[in-house]
Amino acid sequence: MNKINIIKIGGAVIDDEMTLKSFLISFNSLKGKKILVHGGGRKATQWSKKMNIPVKMVNGRRITDSKTLELITGIYAGQINKTLVAKLQGLGTNSLGLSGIDGNLIESKKRIVNDIDYGWVGDVININIDLLLILLNKKYVPVISPLTHDCNGQILNTNADTVSSEIAISLSKKYEVSLYYCFEHQGVMESLKDSNSLIEKIDLKMYESLLKKNILSEGMIPKIQNAFNGLNNGVKNVFIGLPEMINRKIKYTKIEL
Amino acid sequence: MNKINIIKIGGAVIDDEMTLKSFLISFNSLKGKKILVHGGGRKATQWSKKMNIPVKMVNGRRITDSKTLELITGIYAGQINKTLVAKLQGLGTNSLGLSGIDGNLIESKKRIVNDIDYGWVGDVININIDLLLILLNKKYVPVISPLTHDCNGQILNTNADTVSSEIAISLSKKYEVSLYYCFEHQGVMESLKDSNSLIEKIDLKMYESLLKKNILSEGMIPKIQNAFNGLNNGVKNVFIGLPEMINRKIKYTKIEL
Repeated sequence: MNKINIIKIGGAVIDDEMTLKSFLISFNSLKGKKILVHGGGRKATQWSKKMNIPVKMVNGRRITDSKTLELITGIYAGQINKTLVAKLQGLGTNSLGLSGIDGNLIESKKRIVNDIDYGWVGDVININIDLLLILLNKKYVPVISPLTHDCNGQILNTNADTVSSEIAISLSKKYEVSLYYCFEHQGVMESLKDSNSLIEKIDLKMYESLLKKNILSEGMIPKIQNAFNGLNNGVKNVFIGLPEMINRKIKYTKIEL
Repeated sequence: MNKINIIKIGGAVIDDEMTLKSFLISFNSLKGKKILVHGGGRKATQWSKKMNIPVKMVNGRRITDSKTLELITGIYAGQINKTLVAKLQGLGTNSLGLSGIDGNLIESKKRIVNDIDYGWVGDVININIDLLLILLNKKYVPVISPLTHDCNGQILNTNADTVSSEIAISLSKKYEVSLYYCFEHQGVMESLKDSNSLIEKIDLKMYESLLKKNILSEGMIPKIQNAFNGLNNGVKNVFIGLPEMINRKIKYTKIEL
């Protein structure tokens, strides 16, 4: 089975110019089939403020009203996505930007309002990998922004970690998939203040123990849940760590069943 | 030879909700291979104002400084492009958004500063139609925003009429191409005040006479020049008119050699 690397970068990697440059050089030199999935960054909040659109966050998640959706569609699928594609093209990677809307790649459903109304936020219900398979076979490198659609004309904002793991799961029917969650830390840490506290392996038992000890941040819990979901559904490897982990021998956290 | 229709819509079609809806229904029902190319709209100016980025226009063309480039990359390649793709997906067209950066579709060169410094504006130097041919063969419908790149990491703003005619020229080696410039008028008019003054055919002789009579608006001259350039380089038909012209029997202006 052919191998593929799916690499997700978050806001902190995108926001810092030097970090991004260094990551893109690493990504460019990574051999074989690969996909880049990116989240947003500070720009969504910066532009919202400039345009007097109130920024509402609940549990670290953005409440997406109509004006916010319009703005982040511009920033994620336009400004960030095309900047990444142009920079990769400049380095020699024949990249191509997509959102989950394009070619009906990711169908989602507006999240039902229970306690919190997240607004125009979508939960993934189906992935159509045909387009990705065509592009990968022709050696294009897809760069994917986390916008999806309801197949009825409505764009929906979707969590980029989830988009990455769902794409990883779908591609695992055709490829041996390794999924890398890159962010600003070495991996999952016992304490962010102690750089020697990296947890190098997390299995389900360890995860439960970390949950009990209340060590995991609000953002880390869904990331690890997405990782386990991937591993339970055909993804071969999931790593969490610094962007450099994708092709240098540095430490990271490996999630295992 | 297979036929293809390339349809370019400008700001006035995008800005008006009902006009856009009506156009997209027409476009959706258009049979055979097709490509949609879109320009910007009022949103670029609206968002610039909200974000305190000065809007500078010379001869009806936007001066593109760094902040403006970032903004229009978001609006053209993100907000407008994905809105069009989502709406077409909702109607049943398996559309897919691209900019000229994606898959190295359109290489351009930053315009040399003579009298006017247009900023990050690019003139097309090469079109790579490989990606379009792959997608068209697989029955995807490309929706293209007019951003291009210099192959060195720099995004450049490029005139959407030119992008349309250059793509039309490149595809004319493989297809019989008809190019439609859709805007808010019936076509080229002797006088915008007189709805009976439509000029139904313009050849080179007529064009020179219209230029002498000073009838053509500043925006119309490059459009007609792009049309002649297309016809001189393999494009079969070029039409200018209302969006409805693409599949209804209404009058329009046909450009002929």
